[in-house]
Amino acid sequence: MFFASDNAGPAHPQVMQALLDVNQGYANPYGVEPLMDVVRDQVRDLFEAPEAAVYLVATGTAANCLALATLTQPWDTVFCTRFAHIHEDECNGPEFYMSGAKLTLVGQDDKMSAAELRAAIDYEETRGVHGPQRGPVSITQVTERGRVYTLDELRALTELAHGYNLPVHMDGARFANALVTLGCTPAEMTWKLGVDALSFGGTKNGAPGVEAVIFFNPEKAWEFELRRKRGAHLFSKHRYMAAQMNALLTDDLWLSSARRANANMARLVAGLKTVPGMEFHFEPQANIIFGALPRAAHQRLHAAGAVYYLLEGGLDGDPDEALPMRLVCDWSISDDLIDQFVALARG
Amino acid sequence: MFFASDNAGPAHPQVMQALLDVNQGYANPYGVEPLMDVVRDQVRDLFEAPEAAVYLVATGTAANCLALATLTQPWDTVFCTRFAHIHEDECNGPEFYMSGAKLTLVGQDDKMSAAELRAAIDYEETRGVHGPQRGPVSITQVTERGRVYTLDELRALTELAHGYNLPVHMDGARFANALVTLGCTPAEMTWKLGVDALSFGGTKNGAPGVEAVIFFNPEKAWEFELRRKRGAHLFSKHRYMAAQMNALLTDDLWLSSARRANANMARLVAGLKTVPGMEFHFEPQANIIFGALPRAAHQRLHAAGAVYYLLEGGLDGDPDEALPMRLVCDWSISDDLIDQFVALARG
Amino acid sequence: MFFASDNAGPAHPQVMQALLDVNQGYANPYGVEPLMDVVRDQVRDLFEAPEAAVYLVATGTAANCLALATLTQPWDTVFCTRFAHIHEDECNGPEFYMSGAKLTLVGQDDKMSAAELRAAIDYEETRGVHGPQRGPVSITQVTERGRVYTLDELRALTELAHGYNLPVHMDGARFANALVTLGCTPAEMTWKLGVDALSFGGTKNGAPGVEAVIFFNPEKAWEFELRRKRGAHLFSKHRYMAAQMNALLTDDLWLSSARRANANMARLVAGLKTVPGMEFHFEPQANIIFGALPRAAHQRLHAAGAVYYLLEGGLDGDPDEALPMRLVCDWSISDDLIDQFVALARG
Amino acid sequence: MFFASDNAGPAHPQVMQALLDVNQGYANPYGVEPLMDVVRDQVRDLFEAPEAAVYLVATGTAANCLALATLTQPWDTVFCTRFAHIHEDECNGPEFYMSGAKLTLVGQDDKMSAAELRAAIDYEETRGVHGPQRGPVSITQVTERGRVYTLDELRALTELAHGYNLPVHMDGARFANALVTLGCTPAEMTWKLGVDALSFGGTKNGAPGVEAVIFFNPEKAWEFELRRKRGAHLFSKHRYMAAQMNALLTDDLWLSSARRANANMARLVAGLKTVPGMEFHFEPQANIIFGALPRAAHQRLHAAGAVYYLLEGGLDGDPDEALPMRLVCDWSISDDLIDQFVALARG
Repeated sequence: MFFASDNAGPAHPQVMQALLDVNQGYANPYGVEPLMDVVRDQVRDLFEAPEAAVYLVATGTAANCLALATLTQPWDTVFCTRFAHIHEDECNGPEFYMSGAKLTLVGQDDKMSAAELRAAIDYEETRGVHGPQRGPVSITQVTERGRVYTLDELRALTELAHGYNLPVHMDGARFANALVTLGCTPAEMTWKLGVDALSFGGTKNGAPGVEAVIFFNPEKAWEFELRRKRGAHLFSKHRYMAAQMNALLTDDLWLSSARRANANMARLVAGLKTVPGMEFHFEPQANIIFGALPRAAHQRLHAAGAVYYLLEGGLDGDPDEALPMRLVCDWSISDDLIDQFVALARG
Repeated sequence: MFFASDNAGPAHPQVMQALLDVNQGYANPYGVEPLMDVVRDQVRDLFEAPEAAVYLVATGTAANCLALATLTQPWDTVFCTRFAHIHEDECNGPEFYMSGAKLTLVGQDDKMSAAELRAAIDYEETRGVHGPQRGPVSITQVTERGRVYTLDELRALTELAHGYNLPVHMDGARFANALVTLGCTPAEMTWKLGVDALSFGGTKNGAPGVEAVIFFNPEKAWEFELRRKRGAHLFSKHRYMAAQMNALLTDDLWLSSARRANANMARLVAGLKTVPGMEFHFEPQANIIFGALPRAAHQRLHAAGAVYYLLEGGLDGDPDEALPMRLVCDWSISDDLIDQFVALARG
Repeated sequence: MFFASDNAGPAHPQVMQALLDVNQGYANPYGVEPLMDVVRDQVRDLFEAPEAAVYLVATGTAANCLALATLTQPWDTVFCTRFAHIHEDECNGPEFYMSGAKLTLVGQDDKMSAAELRAAIDYEETRGVHGPQRGPVSITQVTERGRVYTLDELRALTELAHGYNLPVHMDGARFANALVTLGCTPAEMTWKLGVDALSFGGTKNGAPGVEAVIFFNPEKAWEFELRRKRGAHLFSKHRYMAAQMNALLTDDLWLSSARRANANMARLVAGLKTVPGMEFHFEPQANIIFGALPRAAHQRLHAAGAVYYLLEGGLDGDPDEALPMRLVCDWSISDDLIDQFVALARG
Repeated sequence: MFFASDNAGPAHPQVMQALLDVNQGYANPYGVEPLMDVVRDQVRDLFEAPEAAVYLVATGTAANCLALATLTQPWDTVFCTRFAHIHEDECNGPEFYMSGAKLTLVGQDDKMSAAELRAAIDYEETRGVHGPQRGPVSITQVTERGRVYTLDELRALTELAHGYNLPVHMDGARFANALVTLGCTPAEMTWKLGVDALSFGGTKNGAPGVEAVIFFNPEKAWEFELRRKRGAHLFSKHRYMAAQMNALLTDDLWLSSARRANANMARLVAGLKTVPGMEFHFEPQANIIFGALPRAAHQRLHAAGAVYYLLEGGLDGDPDEALPMRLVCDWSISDDLIDQFVALARG
């Protein structure tokens, strides 16, 4: 019963098979192997973006840091929320890659509104060389609290950003899960709205470790390549990166995998809604939720070996006290384990 | 007939099998999976270094950059040769990770002598805050030109460095190949000589992409962990990194693989020595050589599809002109292909 | 009628005379001139800190950036307020000098409370290598909104910081003005409370351009010297820096100058309190205030050539609308000009 | 008898008078004071460059670092000589400001030839993202060994650089001394040859501390302003910077001052040529020389209190042994002191 993260489950067997398949003979290193050409075409087709520049790296942090650094000057500030992975969970990696650019935290929540974004951008208006200059807007879809921006919400942000001539980055570590929720096309959730660069996650979606960075306008492609190499993120045996992404994008494995993860979460949520005392901090929308259960439920779950993030408080104390938690479902968790979890929570 | 690099061949089947084996159930992410404990112990045993700090990253550039940055202050200079991978082939990655530290190029060759190193260190002596401060010495073993430092040569360098209180880093992208050449133990080639930090290569030796960074004194282990995360080199699904290294270190696969690569090169060299006009720039010692063949030989090899680096000159011109080349053997190249290469070279 | 900033008035004649006096014969460059020894002793005596390391730079931003960088690792975050000069007015200079460290904004105001600081520090507690690590606390005294921390308020912050083993930096661009307000000694406002490093302002207090950086514990003195040189802030003709600070510290010119500035502001405030519609955002405590006047008053002042920051709104519009402004007095402004300003404001 | 450096003598009285003159009333801070407009026009007139962007900083290292960073990407390498001030005497400041760009050392001498420069540029040609990319060429005029490039020599370098689309930076810490030697116009020694950015020294030429950075093409002016602020080199009381440069450029004080320094050196050289055993490492051309005197001469000079750099060896030993030294003349050294120095050297 492992609900701690979607980076702790196994990789999908089709992805593993792809690694075996690619392990034949010689291949040019550093991303010029033939399979990377296939992947690039797959991504371009998928996004209806025949000019897009497409690169692979192995961690979501690398994708975010390198994509943002390519869009940002060191004296800029990036607009994101206070829950943004780039702010909370990358150990100053973005600041490192951006040579000391700043992050401006917009609003108080995991989603930013256009009004909050406008206020944050306007605040940086009047100080000439003294304050930071306005840099990109970075939006996480699915958010770090498990919510999904609607297309209208996204459009309001991207239009605002472009009104100020600011580029837009999307942290799509769970891009697939959001897409499944919204039921739109990849193009509709990105460049058709004005997203300039996308971190397109594979690692949380069935791969051992692969993320794509996609620039819909290839103007800065060469700069990105230099930044990737300088950041030590260009793999010599790059074919094993390409193989992962190729497998995900073949026969829509990436979508079926995300669909399964979201369905798993829906089953879990449906079950939890029957548990007395269960509260949801945000309406569940994809495959990650934040909520609270009474301590007694946590005690039962821990005793049975369930693994997930208990965000505050310990297991000893008032059995009725509500304790906050985070739960995540990946593609691989079984209905049985989900049902067991719910049964334990219910007591 | 692929002799371009040891990063272009397939991974060893045992390493691939290990990836499949580890792909079961859930595992804690970010390097706290149980298999990493196994790997840490394997490395400590192998190096007779029970206190060593051991980390995995996916590229040799990452290993070098992160190891060096941990040993270096931004106002320091690192002593290395003009052929050093950290100088020539990492797109200013070391300077990036070291926040602008400098590299001082020692001597004129791929190996530095103690006298050259002393001269370079002494040169930085007298300028107070004005010049760069003396930082680590970085030694590549096998060198970028295919030569292997003897233990005495290494000891002369490390003793000199420590006499100035400078730490020593070893770029061991081909550590295994050097060890096979020298026939000593890993400890004898590293900490027993005074090497402080080692980039221990796996990628050129049969893995899809894994390198260990080993600090024989664990004092800066936590700083390294922060630098790795900040550099975006901490894998969430870290088990696939551990599995590769685990496989290499099980039943001495890493050594048999390197032995095979060196033996392949020895066969190639023996054959090439029979080729009229063949010159070796350096006496071959491991699995990478630099030399020259007449243009006519290159013409025959290219026509037959042989792949390797022709370092200067084109295929058109005087058939007798000697053109420089680089040849590398990995573990996987067959005797047949080697013999074919030689036969073509001989004409 | 210039009330825009204390960096726009003339330097004190005694400081200018000191520049002439020092302009004799030869002097060793780079801070080893004899006058710097005098200055170092003056600072140590003044602060009752015989071991303190004392350095001079020309801008407050340099003092802050270099002092903070010496106390901070690149993966740390610095705790400061959202109004902090290091956050708002240094164009990412601190992030640049700290190689990408982050600033965490504490509370919502120009002063941080111990409770707010504790909450901010605690927030960074549980994320291992993922989040930024806790770095120094930076306190501005006088704050950027013109308020002065009491010694008790400061002590609450410094004791809290030291409880977490975090160093404390004080941005004392207007240190002298705060000291005059509190009536304590320099030692009482700094190291006796636990301040580790101080940016001690001279430029806003009668000098053309000199700030001291003082480390009460000299342990990192050499690192600071390297950082200063590398940042291009070590002056060759350093004697002209030393002369400015020497003049300020001779016969308590720095205190009398700050006393005069505060008194000028007190006179201005007393006058403005008689102006109908005048509001103060914060109770004036030193030489800089934030408040609002009706637009009609601003119109009269601008027509008469008064210079100050009108923070929002233009001169055209409802004459009764209150418009926010910032007013600063330096040592040099005359009673007459102050009274004229008040008279114009009153109408 | 102070011949150690041209940064150790007094500032010219006319420059000091300018500081007093500017110390009247209020002035807008941060370089928008009226006097800066005057200075900008003076520089533009002097260089016949009506579009040039002109900025002032206080140290030569700041001028070089900021100018180069504006022309360089972090993955580039700057071509300079091994004696370049930016390489030897700025404590990795350029690497810091350039976010980790590299310096490639051209040739073996203080002057680079076009052939050496071409070889160095060509060497970086073939490695794609792996090696550093080609960045600006930085030329020091007067060189750090006291030699002056002829206009033809400069033209050969700048034409070569522009042939590769590389910008050219000139470190003109002693620009005035070179100009006096060559007898050409400032335009002829800079933009007419293809120099893109100039560090124009004032500090070694009679000012307490001021250098201009001049971009003949103003395209990157705003970027420079942001870099200057972020580097903490934008002075609030900027009028004292403008006053220094204004004084130097008024009535050609900068030229008469340099002429005097060069004439002083010519007198010194003429005298030294009569000293038995005197050797010049380079033919003296401006106001700084490198040569050698017998130890006995050094003993006499030190006993009499002469101050200069003895580059190697101590005062004890064989009286006939030649010991290398550096001698510099500024504008202020008197004929008497020069003659005394020569007399002591002669013995």
